[in-house]
Amino acid sequence: MNLADVLKKRIDDLSSIGNDPTGGMTRLLYTDSWLQAQKYVEQQAKDFDLKTHFDEVGNLFGRVEGSELPAETIMSGSHIDTVVNGGNLDGQYGVIAAMTAIEYLLAEHGQPKRSLEFISMAEEEGSRFPTVFWGSKNFVGEADVDAVKDIADSEGAKFVDEMHRQGFDFKKEQTRRDDIKAFVEIHIEQGNVLENQKLQVGVVNNIAGQRRYNINLKGEANHAGTTPMSYRHDTVYAFSKICSEAIDRANEVGDPLVLTFGKVIPKPNTVNVVPGEVDFTMDCRHTDAEFLKKFTGELEERMTEIAKSMGIEITIDRWMDEAPVPMNTAIVETIEKKADEGNYKYRVMHSGAGHDSQVIAPHYPTAMIFVPSINGISHNPAEKTEFPDLLEGVKLLADTLYELAYK
Amino acid sequence: MNLADVLKKRIDDLSSIGNDPTGGMTRLLYTDSWLQAQKYVEQQAKDFDLKTHFDEVGNLFGRVEGSELPAETIMSGSHIDTVVNGGNLDGQYGVIAAMTAIEYLLAEHGQPKRSLEFISMAEEEGSRFPTVFWGSKNFVGEADVDAVKDIADSEGAKFVDEMHRQGFDFKKEQTRRDDIKAFVEIHIEQGNVLENQKLQVGVVNNIAGQRRYNINLKGEANHAGTTPMSYRHDTVYAFSKICSEAIDRANEVGDPLVLTFGKVIPKPNTVNVVPGEVDFTMDCRHTDAEFLKKFTGELEERMTEIAKSMGIEITIDRWMDEAPVPMNTAIVETIEKKADEGNYKYRVMHSGAGHDSQVIAPHYPTAMIFVPSINGISHNPAEKTEFPDLLEGVKLLADTLYELAYK
Repeated sequence: MNLADVLKKRIDDLSSIGNDPTGGMTRLLYTDSWLQAQKYVEQQAKDFDLKTHFDEVGNLFGRVEGSELPAETIMSGSHIDTVVNGGNLDGQYGVIAAMTAIEYLLAEHGQPKRSLEFISMAEEEGSRFPTVFWGSKNFVGEADVDAVKDIADSEGAKFVDEMHRQGFDFKKEQTRRDDIKAFVEIHIEQGNVLENQKLQVGVVNNIAGQRRYNINLKGEANHAGTTPMSYRHDTVYAFSKICSEAIDRANEVGDPLVLTFGKVIPKPNTVNVVPGEVDFTMDCRHTDAEFLKKFTGELEERMTEIAKSMGIEITIDRWMDEAPVPMNTAIVETIEKKADEGNYKYRVMHSGAGHDSQVIAPHYPTAMIFVPSINGISHNPAEKTEFPDLLEGVKLLADTLYELAYK
Repeated sequence: MNLADVLKKRIDDLSSIGNDPTGGMTRLLYTDSWLQAQKYVEQQAKDFDLKTHFDEVGNLFGRVEGSELPAETIMSGSHIDTVVNGGNLDGQYGVIAAMTAIEYLLAEHGQPKRSLEFISMAEEEGSRFPTVFWGSKNFVGEADVDAVKDIADSEGAKFVDEMHRQGFDFKKEQTRRDDIKAFVEIHIEQGNVLENQKLQVGVVNNIAGQRRYNINLKGEANHAGTTPMSYRHDTVYAFSKICSEAIDRANEVGDPLVLTFGKVIPKPNTVNVVPGEVDFTMDCRHTDAEFLKKFTGELEERMTEIAKSMGIEITIDRWMDEAPVPMNTAIVETIEKKADEGNYKYRVMHSGAGHDSQVIAPHYPTAMIFVPSINGISHNPAEKTEFPDLLEGVKLLADTLYELAYK
């Protein structure tokens, strides 16, 4: 089997399903193009004799039984959905890679000792309905059915109706399988570390924890000409002190800490009025739960001090607090070993972005492989990885699955 | 004559013309309510035998000839237009005060030695059409007719058509009178200095110069999770350093310097993206032209340095550069003398806001009187001054006009 040709054709084929005339790919959960993509993957898997099935919610599985230990499953996969105007790698590359690696192993080495299986997860992005990880959470029996019962997309289509329309339904019970012995997800990095360091692959040992905040500053709107500096309660000035000090500190700490003030909305946002109010966001990530808590705790204290010193009211809403998820050490070591043996240019690294693997890791031994993203661009039509890097990623994934399923 | 009663009635009457059902007053140039207001003022002036006339563009004048030096005119006044949803003092208080002070002087002291005249200027705010100081600029022969020939309001009504509709037209030539020996404008402070210092009036010796900027920072939008701190070109961070350093400096310098970063628009303005671009404004004012130039020059240099050090492109557009306008020393001293004699609680101060007087001062000896603004609020339905303060202002204006016209 010509691995490069098969991989290339599958990426091209799947990229044509959900191609968005306004740019890139838009393949949202329970839309027609979403089902068409799952059906394409299913047919490809059937063509090389995998046993396929959909679960109740629309996760697709393709499996070959193990010869000696069929009740032990080695699994790989990712998600089939995309963001709006996304690229053609985020998610589907991990699905294609898993399926193609299994086909390659079957062709090269015949039936595995343990069962080999891929999963094409229904949803990860949260781009259509206000819910994320719908696929992986159902897979591990953690989905909150009540939370989605009444939600709808931006055009008013109800989640439940759309799910039924495509022939799917809620799982009767949130149960999970007990045969999964290892899960390996391959994904684009969505950052530019590998590219900058001229590496082919990353071995992911941790998915960073995140804390996200909405913060409001209330001061006093005043005339920019007639209000002396000493009479002001200028919220943009307060914001600028908070942001510049905090990022100065984050720069000192450095990797793996990242800190972003992505959104700033002053009011009234006019050249000649001292801004009486500012809403802003803070996004902080680190691989160590304790450090993340301590660092953001200090930032919260310091921003409260700054606001207070200017006679400004501050409201801090920490609306996301996700703990870091360490990957399974044994699997990380297996990937590293195969990377060494295969002379891949690689590094061990953490993921700053969220992935299905963070939902799966608490249940089954899990690790990830990254391939480089050109300019770190993702969630954008310009998302790209050089084909040789995509191919090397699939090879390392196959090598790893071989180690886990054939030995 | 009961000065308080007359003043109160005129404010009430005029405030009912252009009362906006959505809040406050909206009386825009060449609208029906605008003409109605000018006609009201004209009728009031006629009722105590002033000689009234409109000039070509709609400035209204009311005059009594001097007994000994009729060719020397002492003038007072302000503008009749308001902003959208403005208050009922900005502008019209200065018109009513001038007319009422003249009526009071005639009643108390008879015909003046020099001619006394008020002006109710057609427009100052620039709230309907993209032009400001249309009234005062025509009065001093400085209006740019070509600049307004093709402009229209936000609903598409053309300036020229609206002017004609109300019976007005361009001046044949931009000439100016040579009889004006003094101009005194009374206006609300629009700041909270007088209120905070528990003063009744301010004697304005300078109208601050202003420099306004649109500044653009171009860095790189990146994933907030996957982009290490050292790889970023974060424009909100750059903005925060620029703003916090600049305002720190402005705070050290203090009065009469003011510095405002009123508008900040990051792109894409999302919690989990390092902002690749920021547009922001800077508004800086001072009463000394040289200092203003030097201070903002240093800020421009420093923000360029900061951007450069972060690998960020900066574009600095200084789109407004108005020199400070000193008031006439002799008239300032006259007002101070009358304030001392009358035991007014006052201070000499500058104006941080722009006024008709800045257009008039280069042509005729000019000064201003301020009355307190409660909480410094203006351009807002909540604009207010305690009535006793409004009355004291008119009294000091009358005392000043007496000194200038009767002695």
